Amino acid sequence: MSFLSTIATSLKEHEADAALISFLPDIRWACGFTGSNGLLFVKQSTDGEGLEAHFITDGRYTVQAREEVAEATVHVPGYQLFPYLVKEGFFADVESVLFQADHVSVAQRDTWAGQTEGVAWIGAQEVLTRAVAQKTEQEIERIRAAQLITEEVFSFLLQRIKPGVTEREVAAQIMYQHINRGADKLSFDPIVAAGPRGALPHARPTDRPIAPGELVVIDMGCFLNGYASDMTRTIAVGEPGEEARKVYDTVCRAQEAAIDAARAGISSDTLDAVARDVIEEAGYGDYFSHGLGHGVGLQVHEWPRLSYHVSYPLPASAAVTIEPGIYLPDRFGVRIEDIVVLRNRGCVNLTTAPKNLIVIDA
Amino acid sequence: MSFLSTIATSLKEHEADAALISFLPDIRWACGFTGSNGLLFVKQSTDGEGLEAHFITDGRYTVQAREEVAEATVHVPGYQLFPYLVKEGFFADVESVLFQADHVSVAQRDTWAGQTEGVAWIGAQEVLTRAVAQKTEQEIERIRAAQLITEEVFSFLLQRIKPGVTEREVAAQIMYQHINRGADKLSFDPIVAAGPRGALPHARPTDRPIAPGELVVIDMGCFLNGYASDMTRTIAVGEPGEEARKVYDTVCRAQEAAIDAARAGISSDTLDAVARDVIEEAGYGDYFSHGLGHGVGLQVHEWPRLSYHVSYPLPASAAVTIEPGIYLPDRFGVRIEDIVVLRNRGCVNLTTAPKNLIVIDA
Repeated sequence: MSFLSTIATSLKEHEADAALISFLPDIRWACGFTGSNGLLFVKQSTDGEGLEAHFITDGRYTVQAREEVAEATVHVPGYQLFPYLVKEGFFADVESVLFQADHVSVAQRDTWAGQTEGVAWIGAQEVLTRAVAQKTEQEIERIRAAQLITEEVFSFLLQRIKPGVTEREVAAQIMYQHINRGADKLSFDPIVAAGPRGALPHARPTDRPIAPGELVVIDMGCFLNGYASDMTRTIAVGEPGEEARKVYDTVCRAQEAAIDAARAGISSDTLDAVARDVIEEAGYGDYFSHGLGHGVGLQVHEWPRLSYHVSYPLPASAAVTIEPGIYLPDRFGVRIEDIVVLRNRGCVNLTTAPKNLIVIDA
Repeated sequence: MSFLSTIATSLKEHEADAALISFLPDIRWACGFTGSNGLLFVKQSTDGEGLEAHFITDGRYTVQAREEVAEATVHVPGYQLFPYLVKEGFFADVESVLFQADHVSVAQRDTWAGQTEGVAWIGAQEVLTRAVAQKTEQEIERIRAAQLITEEVFSFLLQRIKPGVTEREVAAQIMYQHINRGADKLSFDPIVAAGPRGALPHARPTDRPIAPGELVVIDMGCFLNGYASDMTRTIAVGEPGEEARKVYDTVCRAQEAAIDAARAGISSDTLDAVARDVIEEAGYGDYFSHGLGHGVGLQVHEWPRLSYHVSYPLPASAAVTIEPGIYLPDRFGVRIEDIVVLRNRGCVNLTTAPKNLIVIDA
C-alpha cells in the first residue's frame, strides 16, 4: 500500500488540501530517502486524479535522492527547501496544509505560515504512525539482520566478561563489536549495569569492576540498513545466590508468558498485565517499574507503547520489544528483552539468544 | 550571573509573567540537572521580590535531582510533570507564560495550553541561547578535558592506521577508545573518509580499505561531564602527491588565518571570509562547501554559527570550532578543525594535536 493512500485518508479526515511531511524517519518510510535533510510535499495532482508527491532536498543529495526516492518527484533546489516550494507556486492553489504537529516546533510552523499568507496550517498527530508500525516482510528481515549482529556481539561478550572487567570496558566493546561487524551505528548508548547498578533501569556504564556473584544487565542494539535492533540479557558472573535465581526465573517466566500471549489485536495494557501478573504473584510487583515494551523499526523507540498506561489494540505486523524487569534497590536488577512481530494468531520472535541464566565462571 | 536574570530580561521583553524551560541542555545549564526528564518553571516569587525557580522531575531522579539542582526548588511528583504544576496551582496567578518556541512541538504547546485555560502561551526563540554561549572557566575546562580524550584517541589511531585497514575498523576503534578512556558517550558518529570518500564532508564509514597514497579525513568527538569535544584531522597514508600537499597546505593556512583573526566581537561572516579568502586565492574557492564552524558546549552543535550566511558579532567566552575544508569531487578532501575560546583580544586554542601533514609509512 502506497503511503499516498494513508495521507489521502488524513487529508480527508482533517479537510486539508495538501500535506507537508518533515519528520525524517517518516520521509524515509514513505519514499525511501536515507539522507538528513528533506521535505515531502503531497497535493492534489494537477490533472485532478488523486495525489502527487514531491520530495525536496539539498545539493549534497543530488545523486542519492535520484537513486533512492520512489513514488515522488525529486527536486534539488539548494539549501532553501521550503522557500523553493513557495517560489515554485506549490501553495498557489492550496487553501490548507496538514503538518506533523508532534514533530514540528512552534517556531518552524510559524516560519512556514509566515511565508504562505492565506494558507491554513492544520496540525495533526501520528499522521503516518499506524501505517509505519505495520512492517513489511523486507522491514522485518532488516530488523532481524540488525538483531543478528547484536546477538553475535552478545556471544562475543560472554567470552570476555569476568570478574574485574569494568562496566565501561564492556560498553566500549559493545560499540566496537557492533560497528566492526557491520552496524551503521548504535541504536542507543549501551547499558551495562552490574550488581546494585542493575537496579537502575537506565544506568550509565561506570568504572565499577564486575565482582564475583553479581548479575550484569546488558541492554544494547544497533542500526543496520536503517532498522534498529534492541536486546537485553542479564547474566551472572559466578554463582549469584538463591534470590537472584528466583528473580531471574520470575522475569523469564513473565517474559515468556507475554510472548505466548502476544498477538495482533490484543490491547496494550492487557499484554502488559500478562507479564505483570507473573511478577506480582511472585511478590515483586512493586519492582517492575516500567512498561512492557515499545515498537521498533526506523526508530529504536516508536509507536506502539506496550504499557499499563495505554489500552489501544496492537496492530498486525508491528515489531515490538517484550522486556519485563525486576529492580531491587541497592541489590540487583534483572531484565530480559526480545523483539517479536505480532501476527493474527501469535507472534514470531526475532531474537534467538538463549534465555536460561548464563553463569560465567568466576 | 544567575540564569534568573537572563529569564527576567526575556520576561520583560515579551511581557510574560512566567517561563517554562523544557529544552534539557538549557535546563542543565540553568540548574545543573543531568537527567533525561524535567521541566524548569520560573515565576514571580510569592513575596513579590524577584523570580523563583521550580524544577520538576520524575521518581527515577529523586536522589539525583536533590544532589544536582541549585537555584531551584526541587519537586518529584511522579511521571506527570506538567499536570503536577497545574494541580499545585502554579498557574493560578499567572496570565502569560513564555515557552521555548524553537524546542517545543506544536502538539506539546497545545497540550499545555489545553490544561491551562485563560493562560496565554507566548513562544520565544533563543531564550537562553546567548547566555549559554558564554562559557565559564569551569565549562571551558570541561570542554578541554573532553578534547584531551579525543586527542589521545587521535595519537592512538596514528599507531593503528595503515594500508588495508578499513574506514569501519578505524571508526569502531574511535568509539572503543573514547569510551574506554572515560568519555560518557560519542558526541556524533565518527567520520572516517579515505581517498575519494574524503570529498564528501559528511561521509559515513564504509568497508573500504585505506589504500597507499590516500588522504584520510577523521572527524570525531565525545561528551565528558556533559561537555562536547569535536576535532578533525586529515592524515596521509603513504606519500599523497603534489596537489594533495598543496590542498592540505591551503586548508592549514586558511585555518590558521581564521584562528589569528578570531576574537570576541568579530562578525560571523567576517571571520568565515578570512578563511575563505585564503582558499579562494589558492584557486579552490568552489570547493569549500560549508561554513567555518559552530559553537560547542552542552551540545556539540550550538549557537553561534560561523558562516557567510550570518552576520552577528561573536560573543566573548564562546567556544567555537574553526574547521575549513576543501573537497575535490571523486578525488580527495581535507578538513582541519580545532576548538577555540573567543576573548576580547584574540582566542585561546583548546586543541593541541599537531597540524603539520602527518604521513604514515605505507
